[in-house]
Amino acid sequence: MLRIGVLGATGYTGLEIVRILARHPFAEVGFLSSETYAGQAFSAVYPCDEDTVLVAPGDAPVGDMDLVFLCTPHGASALLAKRVLDAGVKCVDLSADFRLRDVEMYRAFYREHTAPGLLSDAVYGLTEFYRDRITGSHLVANPGCYPTGALLPLLPLVRAGLLSGERIIVDAKSGVSGAGAKPSIKTHFCSVHDNFAPYSIGHVHRHAPEIEQELVAWGARNGHIVFSPHLLPVSRGILSTIYLHLAAGVDLSDVHDCWSATYADEPFVRVLPQGTLASLAHVVNTNLCAISVASAGYPGGAILVSSIDNLLKGASGQAIQNMNVMFGLNETSGLV
Amino acid sequence: MLRIGVLGATGYTGLEIVRILARHPFAEVGFLSSETYAGQAFSAVYPCDEDTVLVAPGDAPVGDMDLVFLCTPHGASALLAKRVLDAGVKCVDLSADFRLRDVEMYRAFYREHTAPGLLSDAVYGLTEFYRDRITGSHLVANPGCYPTGALLPLLPLVRAGLLSGERIIVDAKSGVSGAGAKPSIKTHFCSVHDNFAPYSIGHVHRHAPEIEQELVAWGARNGHIVFSPHLLPVSRGILSTIYLHLAAGVDLSDVHDCWSATYADEPFVRVLPQGTLASLAHVVNTNLCAISVASAGYPGGAILVSSIDNLLKGASGQAIQNMNVMFGLNETSGLV
Amino acid sequence: MLRIGVLGATGYTGLEIVRILARHPFAEVGFLSSETYAGQAFSAVYPCDEDTVLVAPGDAPVGDMDLVFLCTPHGASALLAKRVLDAGVKCVDLSADFRLRDVEMYRAFYREHTAPGLLSDAVYGLTEFYRDRITGSHLVANPGCYPTGALLPLLPLVRAGLLSGERIIVDAKSGVSGAGAKPSIKTHFCSVHDNFAPYSIGHVHRHAPEIEQELVAWGARNGHIVFSPHLLPVSRGILSTIYLHLAAGVDLSDVHDCWSATYADEPFVRVLPQGTLASLAHVVNTNLCAISVASAGYPGGAILVSSIDNLLKGASGQAIQNMNVMFGLNETSGLV
Amino acid sequence: MLRIGVLGATGYTGLEIVRILARHPFAEVGFLSSETYAGQAFSAVYPCDEDTVLVAPGDAPVGDMDLVFLCTPHGASALLAKRVLDAGVKCVDLSADFRLRDVEMYRAFYREHTAPGLLSDAVYGLTEFYRDRITGSHLVANPGCYPTGALLPLLPLVRAGLLSGERIIVDAKSGVSGAGAKPSIKTHFCSVHDNFAPYSIGHVHRHAPEIEQELVAWGARNGHIVFSPHLLPVSRGILSTIYLHLAAGVDLSDVHDCWSATYADEPFVRVLPQGTLASLAHVVNTNLCAISVASAGYPGGAILVSSIDNLLKGASGQAIQNMNVMFGLNETSGLV
Repeated sequence: MLRIGVLGATGYTGLEIVRILARHPFAEVGFLSSETYAGQAFSAVYPCDEDTVLVAPGDAPVGDMDLVFLCTPHGASALLAKRVLDAGVKCVDLSADFRLRDVEMYRAFYREHTAPGLLSDAVYGLTEFYRDRITGSHLVANPGCYPTGALLPLLPLVRAGLLSGERIIVDAKSGVSGAGAKPSIKTHFCSVHDNFAPYSIGHVHRHAPEIEQELVAWGARNGHIVFSPHLLPVSRGILSTIYLHLAAGVDLSDVHDCWSATYADEPFVRVLPQGTLASLAHVVNTNLCAISVASAGYPGGAILVSSIDNLLKGASGQAIQNMNVMFGLNETSGLV
Repeated sequence: MLRIGVLGATGYTGLEIVRILARHPFAEVGFLSSETYAGQAFSAVYPCDEDTVLVAPGDAPVGDMDLVFLCTPHGASALLAKRVLDAGVKCVDLSADFRLRDVEMYRAFYREHTAPGLLSDAVYGLTEFYRDRITGSHLVANPGCYPTGALLPLLPLVRAGLLSGERIIVDAKSGVSGAGAKPSIKTHFCSVHDNFAPYSIGHVHRHAPEIEQELVAWGARNGHIVFSPHLLPVSRGILSTIYLHLAAGVDLSDVHDCWSATYADEPFVRVLPQGTLASLAHVVNTNLCAISVASAGYPGGAILVSSIDNLLKGASGQAIQNMNVMFGLNETSGLV
Repeated sequence: MLRIGVLGATGYTGLEIVRILARHPFAEVGFLSSETYAGQAFSAVYPCDEDTVLVAPGDAPVGDMDLVFLCTPHGASALLAKRVLDAGVKCVDLSADFRLRDVEMYRAFYREHTAPGLLSDAVYGLTEFYRDRITGSHLVANPGCYPTGALLPLLPLVRAGLLSGERIIVDAKSGVSGAGAKPSIKTHFCSVHDNFAPYSIGHVHRHAPEIEQELVAWGARNGHIVFSPHLLPVSRGILSTIYLHLAAGVDLSDVHDCWSATYADEPFVRVLPQGTLASLAHVVNTNLCAISVASAGYPGGAILVSSIDNLLKGASGQAIQNMNVMFGLNETSGLV
Repeated sequence: MLRIGVLGATGYTGLEIVRILARHPFAEVGFLSSETYAGQAFSAVYPCDEDTVLVAPGDAPVGDMDLVFLCTPHGASALLAKRVLDAGVKCVDLSADFRLRDVEMYRAFYREHTAPGLLSDAVYGLTEFYRDRITGSHLVANPGCYPTGALLPLLPLVRAGLLSGERIIVDAKSGVSGAGAKPSIKTHFCSVHDNFAPYSIGHVHRHAPEIEQELVAWGARNGHIVFSPHLLPVSRGILSTIYLHLAAGVDLSDVHDCWSATYADEPFVRVLPQGTLASLAHVVNTNLCAISVASAGYPGGAILVSSIDNLLKGASGQAIQNMNVMFGLNETSGLV
């Protein structure tokens, strides 16, 4: 059994990793850390069966692990990654610290980077597109939740040259767990329930440059997007409605064929039959991404709809998927 | 007191009219009809205080009323409108039967029209834009819920020539009451709760031509839209995120100024301060439409966000507002 | 117009009072205070139309008001009540500070009382039972939300001697707004949504002695109850399921008759027809209390079910109702 | 691999069995039947990955299976059980047809029994209490959802003689999936959302005699209960708050000790630490039953709180657990 540590285990991504490890056949909890709850059992923080006592981050036996997941905030993660790698242990970082390859872009959207020297070692952990590099990697930058939902339908089309050069619009809707476990007036039940609200729309959300980085890396003719997140009154799930223009001569069947070819052997991407649109119900509580396409009602106009569980394929599920790849395990272990 | 009849009173729009009339200072229930529940008290159908006994539509004393609301399905409404008007009684139709001025368009998106001769008498009941004609009208076609939410932010800009000729995208999200009270697997609690799903996206939903009709009527350079509705896990409310390009030289302040000028004296349109985006919480359980604007992140790119309560400003509230106008009452009577 | 001040206006009970005053024909906002948000417009704190700028509590022009509502925490309210009364202004306290007539009981369940000298002046504001005393009062202790829902069905039966002396069980379920607007892990959307949980069950919740005080005051043979609150995944509403034994020879019809006689002329208590059980849908967004009764399945066994909106009849609605009584206004003003 | 048939696969219990089989290491779908959807893929009915084409019940290859689950309505199930058993195939019936051992009681609460001759062969499938008999059984009557939640905390106490002879009150709250997949006004999203309502309270619900049968079978001094179900605005989960009196000299620690001894080696019953109360969050999406106890505030008064996922431990999860027992598999297979 692989011994797995989780730094920052009491956020929602940590909780989800703990849940997955409980049913993983080849990996188990080594340590769980928390600044706030050190000394308490994990089951005293969340109603569950995991009775491991939380340790303070400084006391975590990092060196005894086979892999450590960083479920810590950006900024903090970069330094912790260094500690893990220095101990000769593999690391998957669920924060944003190693997602952007351009340190200036990181500074513009986040802050001064605290371990820029590690950036070149990090592999972007969108498993279906970086699997080969993840296999041999020691440091995986687990993708953002919104980018995962947007890139899985878009990248095959970009790579195949099926899109025109016009700007892509991503209208995305996320459940509340994406905002994290920290209490605030924005996540108070009475603020969210029966409500629906946009936030950080246009081009100000931190996931916009991450999506753009990958679009460009895989050959997009236009590297600029419009990205509008909204907060849904559900706990889990992201649905993205993506407006775009196809290249001349390309139609919806070409989109569907491109996806089918790309994802034929992928266990976690489900290409829906034409005529069916993705919904949260297709994916919640699974590691799946469902993708679908419809006409925008005019020649060349297409609408892609994708859905994921933001805590699974959008975070902890994909992190475990990457761990499975890093250790040569069956990629679906613990995830079905 | 005005005597008011409601044909089709046991749907959600009928229920909402009943609730408003209960606190209206100048109008009261005359009759409530229902095919299914005739003979029962209204309070036996919905938990409320209205004990009026429902009558079969054929027994409704239409001629004794000052105004009749048609909360009946399209197709049925057209013939009932004729019956009401022939009795010399004013009529507000909440169905789609008199919204589209082009009978061919109605046939294409709905069915063969059953009372085409009345079309020229009907006034489109978007109160803020057709108030003068509503005043003297006998037949008001109450707008669709999605069109109300899209047109209130768009029409002032169209009229003022602030938009480019590029296609407008309306990504709209509605609560479940918009789907009506009839039970189906689509409206089953377990189908909707914790779910979020698109439907009829692109250019197939019946409200697309209605929005386009009004855009053109008020001077749009491009009469085609992309319209993508989604179903939210809430009972009430529509939020519309609208992507568009401004005309050369126009910026967000011009949009805001245009709205402020247009709606300065309107009791039911609230122009939010710049930096604040509309949410359902701004409007649910009120007759308000909240409108707001943000940058799309590139020159000339703008995103409008509007919200309404689909059963109030999007249906029964606006119907009462129109009734108030038709009878020269204070327009806010019963609505605050 | 009465000039009304609200101390602690940015909690949920303050928000609700502001909403009611907006449509009250005879009362209007005089000042709104907040420690946290002083200097901001009320509409910057909650999405609404009330643009009054919040003042610090110390700056509130208490003496210029006709009445001040205390929406402040227990402990703080008692001292503020003194300030209001000393200024010669009437006061309705929505906290618990003046509900318990026994200062020792207050100490046991809350803390040391900070203004015990005022206790004898305070009237318990369960309007239907203390209306006469409220009329001439300067200080009304607005009842707790759970007590309101439990006492309205119970007190008529207690007073009429219809209950046996066996212990009464109140199994109560409340929406989240009852827990207040302060963010915490307990009120985080992801903690409450899709969840349902008991808390403080048995005889430890602070509302137990309040219910018992009134049962005894109105003649109960047994002054002890079992009281079990639960948290519902809704924003508003309390439903109470009350298990009790009727006195010898008393049956369900007697219960129903007693209620009908007691509440025949009450605008805000709705006795449901036999066979119909109260639900949240009967009362949410209204100032109503719905009450109903069913057999427990054995001779003398009865189950009462009542429902209220915890923020209206359970707090701010009843507070306004009491204000209306204190000033001789129509009791339903602003509440229909 | 065991070949498993599901008759009535398109209800919620069928869907849940399909989901469990997808991850079961030793059992797989043999056939899925549906009267309504025969000829369509299962994935066309529910958004999921199971593409098996539904067959009409009459065409189901019952004899080729190792076991058939009956997810069919009571009345229909009894005759189908006969067909399955006559084909020499094991059967787990999720309907009520074989739960009540007294055919007169079945007639009183359901209807005339259609296969009374099989009643004596059926084993009541509350796994933790009937495991030995289930092992060799061909026909298991899977318990009702409410009875499972009530009996797991109660039966150990009854068996150990810890309860007084006074009447037990079960105040139970269930998610909507318990009402089945059939659309109706009662299960319409807008009827349930933001609502909470009691139904069939006292002693009229069909699960009351089922609970009483088992209480008596395991030695209760009083075989009568009060049972009050309520409908929660969630999809899944049942929480039961149970009011009872302990026998003389028994205290809460005795209750806790009795449970700990009974359930020490049970994988699916979690005795919560004293001071912690069961909530839906402890169990939803698991096959667990969480049980807890608190004082009712007077000597001998106790409140038990239990929670289950009504579709898992309350239906399909327990059905699979029983299948595992019937075939000598590890009891947790497919359920963790």
